[in-house]
Amino acid sequence: MDKMKRAERMVAAMQILMSKPNILIPLTILAERFGAAKSTISEDLLALKESLHSTGQGRLETVSGAAGGVRYIPEISRGEAREFLKELSERLSVKERILTGSFLYMTDLLYDPAVLRPLGLIFAGAFREKKPDVVVTIETKGIPLALVTAEALGVPMVIIRHGNKVTEGSAVSINYVSGSSKRIQSMSLGRRALEAGKRVLLIDDFMKAGGTALGMVNLMQEFEVNVVGIGVLMESLTENEPKIVHQYCSLLQLKELDPVHGLAVVTPSSDFS
Amino acid sequence: MDKMKRAERMVAAMQILMSKPNILIPLTILAERFGAAKSTISEDLLALKESLHSTGQGRLETVSGAAGGVRYIPEISRGEAREFLKELSERLSVKERILTGSFLYMTDLLYDPAVLRPLGLIFAGAFREKKPDVVVTIETKGIPLALVTAEALGVPMVIIRHGNKVTEGSAVSINYVSGSSKRIQSMSLGRRALEAGKRVLLIDDFMKAGGTALGMVNLMQEFEVNVVGIGVLMESLTENEPKIVHQYCSLLQLKELDPVHGLAVVTPSSDFS
Repeated sequence: MDKMKRAERMVAAMQILMSKPNILIPLTILAERFGAAKSTISEDLLALKESLHSTGQGRLETVSGAAGGVRYIPEISRGEAREFLKELSERLSVKERILTGSFLYMTDLLYDPAVLRPLGLIFAGAFREKKPDVVVTIETKGIPLALVTAEALGVPMVIIRHGNKVTEGSAVSINYVSGSSKRIQSMSLGRRALEAGKRVLLIDDFMKAGGTALGMVNLMQEFEVNVVGIGVLMESLTENEPKIVHQYCSLLQLKELDPVHGLAVVTPSSDFS
Repeated sequence: MDKMKRAERMVAAMQILMSKPNILIPLTILAERFGAAKSTISEDLLALKESLHSTGQGRLETVSGAAGGVRYIPEISRGEAREFLKELSERLSVKERILTGSFLYMTDLLYDPAVLRPLGLIFAGAFREKKPDVVVTIETKGIPLALVTAEALGVPMVIIRHGNKVTEGSAVSINYVSGSSKRIQSMSLGRRALEAGKRVLLIDDFMKAGGTALGMVNLMQEFEVNVVGIGVLMESLTENEPKIVHQYCSLLQLKELDPVHGLAVVTPSSDFS
């Protein structure tokens, strides 16, 4: 067999697999596409697997049997994750980001696909072994983060809304106290959005006292699902209040935010530094 | 040179390029990574380009000169886009999706990465030649759609909020009349979110009369940016009202929604059927 043809097939297979991450592609589909025997495709995939072995950027998972096939699992190496969070911390630790009311401006980064993609891979790496079936977030700023995490894990996303929306059918609502505003607010989720028994990963952009996260956990109980993890991009450590949720994973920590002296200090969390 | 080594390099290069779509990777980075000469990498990329020539799933773009390099542009073929929108229309044209108040339930699909990814590629394909610098949407349901479109185009996203939010600094607000509720509402965007002169692509999930889209266009005027396109996933044609915005691109059309007879009819728009 001409070696160059194998290379071409490997590249095309790689493109198909990476274009549909986490989706199982039957070998017969690849065999038909390339006009090659299944045994040839198997050899190609073995060579592909070898080539990806040490890149730390993703791997192939093969499932044998009649319903078998191959899927691409996107990943980020530990070193790359650390490097990325260090750089992100530096971009956030600037006084120009301090807003009136002691908030740190970060929406530009939270909505940028080039920043989001590695964050999704980091969250996916942290929670993949918990086998979540769905990623749940609350509107608005956590949505892009939840979506890239769901995509990296190969599961759907669900968005909890503030108040009740007519376009989502009958819904379950609960009240909660948000840490940042100290006011009672309500959150709701359409009944058909989540099936009982699902394994849920909660993702949000920011955690202060944890009131919103606790509200989400309580809402999940109404749906009889199983919360298998909580991930937040940044937790605030600027006030010495204890958090009201435990067992969450943060990627970044806001250590100081002093509008008077123009000081903002963000660092990677200890797991990533 | 050993052919198999070339195949391995091609696969690894493909993985790096597809992991950072739309981002220009200098050849020197690849040369260092693979311990190969730049001329060898150039040959690898030429072979890669050839292999991708006819897949319709994305292509390599090389930029020559000192600041040059190579980037992966993700794409979807016209045939695949048509097939996908046809299937999506069928999934939406079921009576179980009709909600009280004549709404069509579609959040499950709007939040599913496996559905979103092709939609992002279809929008990107429709608007790439308009060279948008940024994708703008309004919370909440259009956000995932806007994000995948921004990612496929390699540009950031900006989210217009309802009301004014403390965590985004000073903001510009306008009032608008939403087609679905016929009520006056307000939308706002932080001043630092958008620079004057940018080329903006507006993306939303649904258009009835076009009141929200018109509001977004008006808000964009306040920022002195240039709206180069409007894309909506679904436009409603159930009422014989003319739209108040023109020159938009819809992927799907809601042709009938009759709760009494349990009839929902969605079809791909004429450009995609």
